[in-house]
Amino acid sequence: MKAFMDETFLLNTKTAQDLYSKYADMRKIPVLDYHCHINPQEICEDRKFENISQLWLGGDHYKWRQMRTNGVDEKYITGDAPDHEKFLQWAATLPKLIGNPLYHWSHLELRYYFGYQGNLNADTAEEVWNLCNKKLQESGSSVRGLIKQSNVRLICTTDDPVDSLIWHEKIKEDPTFDVQVLPAFRPDRAMNAEKADFTDYIKKLAESSGVAVKDFASLKEALRTRMDHIASHGCSVSDHGLEYVMYVPATDEEVDAAFTKALQKEALTDTELQQYKTAFMLFLAGEYHKRDWVMQLHYGAKRDNNSYMFDRLGPDTGFDCINDHTPSAQLADFLNALAAKDTIPRTIVYSLNPTDDAAIGSVIGCFQGGGIKNRIQQGSAWWFNDHFTGMTNQMKSLASLSALGNFVGMLTDSRSFLSYTRHDYFRRILCNMIGDWVENGEYPYEEKILGEIIRGISYYNAVEYFRFDLQKV
Amino acid sequence: MKAFMDETFLLNTKTAQDLYSKYADMRKIPVLDYHCHINPQEICEDRKFENISQLWLGGDHYKWRQMRTNGVDEKYITGDAPDHEKFLQWAATLPKLIGNPLYHWSHLELRYYFGYQGNLNADTAEEVWNLCNKKLQESGSSVRGLIKQSNVRLICTTDDPVDSLIWHEKIKEDPTFDVQVLPAFRPDRAMNAEKADFTDYIKKLAESSGVAVKDFASLKEALRTRMDHIASHGCSVSDHGLEYVMYVPATDEEVDAAFTKALQKEALTDTELQQYKTAFMLFLAGEYHKRDWVMQLHYGAKRDNNSYMFDRLGPDTGFDCINDHTPSAQLADFLNALAAKDTIPRTIVYSLNPTDDAAIGSVIGCFQGGGIKNRIQQGSAWWFNDHFTGMTNQMKSLASLSALGNFVGMLTDSRSFLSYTRHDYFRRILCNMIGDWVENGEYPYEEKILGEIIRGISYYNAVEYFRFDLQKV
Amino acid sequence: MKAFMDETFLLNTKTAQDLYSKYADMRKIPVLDYHCHINPQEICEDRKFENISQLWLGGDHYKWRQMRTNGVDEKYITGDAPDHEKFLQWAATLPKLIGNPLYHWSHLELRYYFGYQGNLNADTAEEVWNLCNKKLQESGSSVRGLIKQSNVRLICTTDDPVDSLIWHEKIKEDPTFDVQVLPAFRPDRAMNAEKADFTDYIKKLAESSGVAVKDFASLKEALRTRMDHIASHGCSVSDHGLEYVMYVPATDEEVDAAFTKALQKEALTDTELQQYKTAFMLFLAGEYHKRDWVMQLHYGAKRDNNSYMFDRLGPDTGFDCINDHTPSAQLADFLNALAAKDTIPRTIVYSLNPTDDAAIGSVIGCFQGGGIKNRIQQGSAWWFNDHFTGMTNQMKSLASLSALGNFVGMLTDSRSFLSYTRHDYFRRILCNMIGDWVENGEYPYEEKILGEIIRGISYYNAVEYFRFDLQKV
Repeated sequence: MKAFMDETFLLNTKTAQDLYSKYADMRKIPVLDYHCHINPQEICEDRKFENISQLWLGGDHYKWRQMRTNGVDEKYITGDAPDHEKFLQWAATLPKLIGNPLYHWSHLELRYYFGYQGNLNADTAEEVWNLCNKKLQESGSSVRGLIKQSNVRLICTTDDPVDSLIWHEKIKEDPTFDVQVLPAFRPDRAMNAEKADFTDYIKKLAESSGVAVKDFASLKEALRTRMDHIASHGCSVSDHGLEYVMYVPATDEEVDAAFTKALQKEALTDTELQQYKTAFMLFLAGEYHKRDWVMQLHYGAKRDNNSYMFDRLGPDTGFDCINDHTPSAQLADFLNALAAKDTIPRTIVYSLNPTDDAAIGSVIGCFQGGGIKNRIQQGSAWWFNDHFTGMTNQMKSLASLSALGNFVGMLTDSRSFLSYTRHDYFRRILCNMIGDWVENGEYPYEEKILGEIIRGISYYNAVEYFRFDLQKV
Repeated sequence: MKAFMDETFLLNTKTAQDLYSKYADMRKIPVLDYHCHINPQEICEDRKFENISQLWLGGDHYKWRQMRTNGVDEKYITGDAPDHEKFLQWAATLPKLIGNPLYHWSHLELRYYFGYQGNLNADTAEEVWNLCNKKLQESGSSVRGLIKQSNVRLICTTDDPVDSLIWHEKIKEDPTFDVQVLPAFRPDRAMNAEKADFTDYIKKLAESSGVAVKDFASLKEALRTRMDHIASHGCSVSDHGLEYVMYVPATDEEVDAAFTKALQKEALTDTELQQYKTAFMLFLAGEYHKRDWVMQLHYGAKRDNNSYMFDRLGPDTGFDCINDHTPSAQLADFLNALAAKDTIPRTIVYSLNPTDDAAIGSVIGCFQGGGIKNRIQQGSAWWFNDHFTGMTNQMKSLASLSALGNFVGMLTDSRSFLSYTRHDYFRRILCNMIGDWVENGEYPYEEKILGEIIRGISYYNAVEYFRFDLQKV
Repeated sequence: MKAFMDETFLLNTKTAQDLYSKYADMRKIPVLDYHCHINPQEICEDRKFENISQLWLGGDHYKWRQMRTNGVDEKYITGDAPDHEKFLQWAATLPKLIGNPLYHWSHLELRYYFGYQGNLNADTAEEVWNLCNKKLQESGSSVRGLIKQSNVRLICTTDDPVDSLIWHEKIKEDPTFDVQVLPAFRPDRAMNAEKADFTDYIKKLAESSGVAVKDFASLKEALRTRMDHIASHGCSVSDHGLEYVMYVPATDEEVDAAFTKALQKEALTDTELQQYKTAFMLFLAGEYHKRDWVMQLHYGAKRDNNSYMFDRLGPDTGFDCINDHTPSAQLADFLNALAAKDTIPRTIVYSLNPTDDAAIGSVIGCFQGGGIKNRIQQGSAWWFNDHFTGMTNQMKSLASLSALGNFVGMLTDSRSFLSYTRHDYFRRILCNMIGDWVENGEYPYEEKILGEIIRGISYYNAVEYFRFDLQKV
């Protein structure tokens, strides 16, 4: 029996252990955090944490969700119970999460950042509470300290076109912090014409860009202006949160009519909405291609499903689910509309619906080329799928249908400064899978090639693919 | 090489074997049969069986289906061939079912109830026939004897609102049988307005309830009356067989118009039908919440697909399949309509489409709370999925997305008194999976916690979740 | 650690190795190639190859696709670069394809046909180039030699109703080649009324059949005539490439109206198109039943997705993907329309969408019977799914839902004369899976039964199912 979550955690063969130790260990091979939701203000101000509850339970809706699942009263989740009591509730919930990635992530974090080797449960909760809180008082436990401990070289946050990017500016001007913190362009609100706040948002976009937005042409102009602005802060990555990748083409007149109708707060028909969104995405994808940006398409989520809780807590509080209407035909047609004009940007496709793996693997294969290694990538298993099974299935599917050796690897998608250990989790699963193949005679033990593949997927493929300048500070 | 199906069947580690033996063995940890299709009359009359064909092949459409698949003539399946010849045909079919759960279930039943340790095939058929039939003459081989042998504490049958429940009454009055046999409420026929016998059924419902059903309001009144009746016989569980969980909301007027149209034998449009069914389900779910009943949603089946055979044999004879149109968005919206008014009952969601596992896991996470452990459950792998792969996938998905520790576990869904060994099959798979995790260092060997989890999933979680009074007889 | 791809490749237990060696080794158990895309002219002319690039890269869009994925310039893929340079590019791409079936297939081919035991990469490329090309000069390396080396007994090509079948005639007349090469009937072009060349094609069909096609009745007559023609060349197998199996029934008048509208080059509505296609398939399926042919339904592909590349390279050049709209309900209804009249032919169902496995397994179970072993088969994992995971999942699903012992096994689907080693790949995966079951006590070590099952799935089940006369030459 292997010891519980020791150094060889998830590394079940000698080959896996050797490969991990040489080519994947986060202490040697850095992290490129090209996608996360952490707050640049907290990096700028180098926030410190009084206790482990603030760090763990302050904003992590993954944990909230499982505490609710275990029957914990909302008072101890998002309510006004003391931090210590919240922690005890979490500790009592954890053992029920057998087989859940939160169980592993929590213990990886306890090991990596706090040096705790035991297991957290109701009986050990006090010991862990004290140990963590003591450690959090030490230097190196602030936001910047945690980032440095995690060997992160570059972070892309998630930013709205109207954002001022003031915190990014301040971080850049600060000579004491040598990790690049760049913005990423996430223009969802300008696309979601069905939302109640759409016209208010368009007003903000007009103000921030200085362009009077009165039709689709001026909307494009406003977006271009804001792309220039964010590019001047180092952005070269976009991100889209989509229900699904749709392709409902329309004439310019139809698109313009739909957009101006929405501006007048009239409800669009389903077709009008899909036409507008399709045109919106085609326009932006073309811009990304021109600007040499990477486009990320995150889709398959249905958000804010519990209206009772939404009224009380707002968005991003643990009430989202998988939307399984994610037609591969429209994804292919959308990419083809770009490929047909030879204006397809480097693109990463992620679906929250794990049964899409094979369809995505087959679609991306239709749009490779241009002398770029995996120009179209299938993004790593994400959100509801970033567990052992999900990651393994995504990588085996990608390997079966594409060139796994060129994969850009894990995205953090984090709202917490401890969650870089998810990269470690991913890398262990990767090394174990490859170790199994090698030990089983399915791939030769060619150490040079294997080392390149694993280092690549862990870090260097993303550096090459995104074309970041890591020499900059 | 392990021996064929010995005591350690599917228990491939020492840890799995220990955990099973202490915390899951059916001889120690009872069975709560909260969902089955067995006939209360046969329990009441304590039916005896002349031979193994009557018990095995008399009504088991799983076996019929595989005999047809193997090219056996219908005469030996549902026809008038002698029982002995039918048995020989089944025995000759069985070896072809390598990897099929019927292969394992059959041998588990031979071991558990008949003490046969060999394997059944054409060569051993006579030996097994004689052994089983001899055993069936012994006391303890009647229906009640088999139930007692299986360590079953409580059975919920499946009952229509119009059923008289006379057999449940008789069983309750019989002091010689100490297993509770309770009815469960299955009102599908009152929902399926597209069926030819709908209006006839509504007449029966009116008669049984004493309520003249002439509009949606009086339909609700009639159903409430029958819920009172079944509740007075101990029912606290409902079950619905749905094509998919739909959500097409409508005004009261629209629903009423659709229902009265159906009563006049006019065909409803798709939208009208969906509106009626949505309103029907919302009404009942609200009632279940008021009455503190558990709601079971079984969906994803398309039934009676072979009309040639349906004309000859009727329903439930082995001609059903998976319907893969099971949109997660409507499931989420339906549950939200209940959650929004804080009237969501404890609910168990089962899809026959196994690719729904992740979507369901993500949906149920949006509606947990109320201080109840896994208020919304994903039900166990069922019907076409209750095999090794299906059960493993369902549990790994549930573990990854929810709190496996609170799972209510296996449902029997049985039409046979031998099929309680499916609980044993399930428990072995559960213990093996957890044993692997522990031996692999993915979960600590904390015996107290592990024991609670396994006993819980095997029996005690369901006892707590359903709130049955097991002190009653 | 096992050696890289030695004799025991993918055979991880002693039982698997024994079963493979006795009952699956291609050198002992022949290949029945009931479905491929190889060119009968090349067989007739016994084509020879100057170098390995011609054989490997001349027409294999699987390899082209992965070279594009790896960023190789099109010049080295379908362009005019020298064969040697193309080979070097492929050799440099291969190591990136870790976990991809092309990695395994390529090495299986190098071992089986060229005796090369190493691994191909940039460093070994020259050595392999020289070795293979030398071998290709030897006798036995022509098309017929490769077929004989592969122990193939019978080949079904893929043929259009208008094909003259002249090459099949010549092969049959040639006494020096004792492998049967039969045509298979693939009438997709007569069904695809939405295509630009539909009316041109119908003209060709009229000419080849001598029937003036002016309505649906005369179309059926023309098709019947061509079926007679192809049958006279030994055809007893059909094949259909479908977006999905649809069922949109219509009256004869509606079908006739849709077809004549298409003949007049008017665009059909979606419904008209679906009605026409449904009627087309129902007609042919009825014909197959009458003629005792096997019907193959291949569906779930969306083709020619990259219009930029399509304009340059045409179809079948590596730009197809999975279409995930493959409703099980319509598949069931289509088969029922045949079963209802008791005119269902032996049918093999293949979906390119791997998440359809369970739905298909459940649908086919509704239409078994007629005294035929697995009258309706689920076809083997195909195209994007014919890798380790895909084949394993398909077989485990089939085993769980049907009688694996009656499975007709692997289809080659080949465009290359080397790809018969995919049968070897399949058989290793099969033997390994069964070996695991036996060693794990899940199936008894009954060698006679196991041997029959494995020989059956490898070759003999297909011989029985298709009813080929293998005594003929």
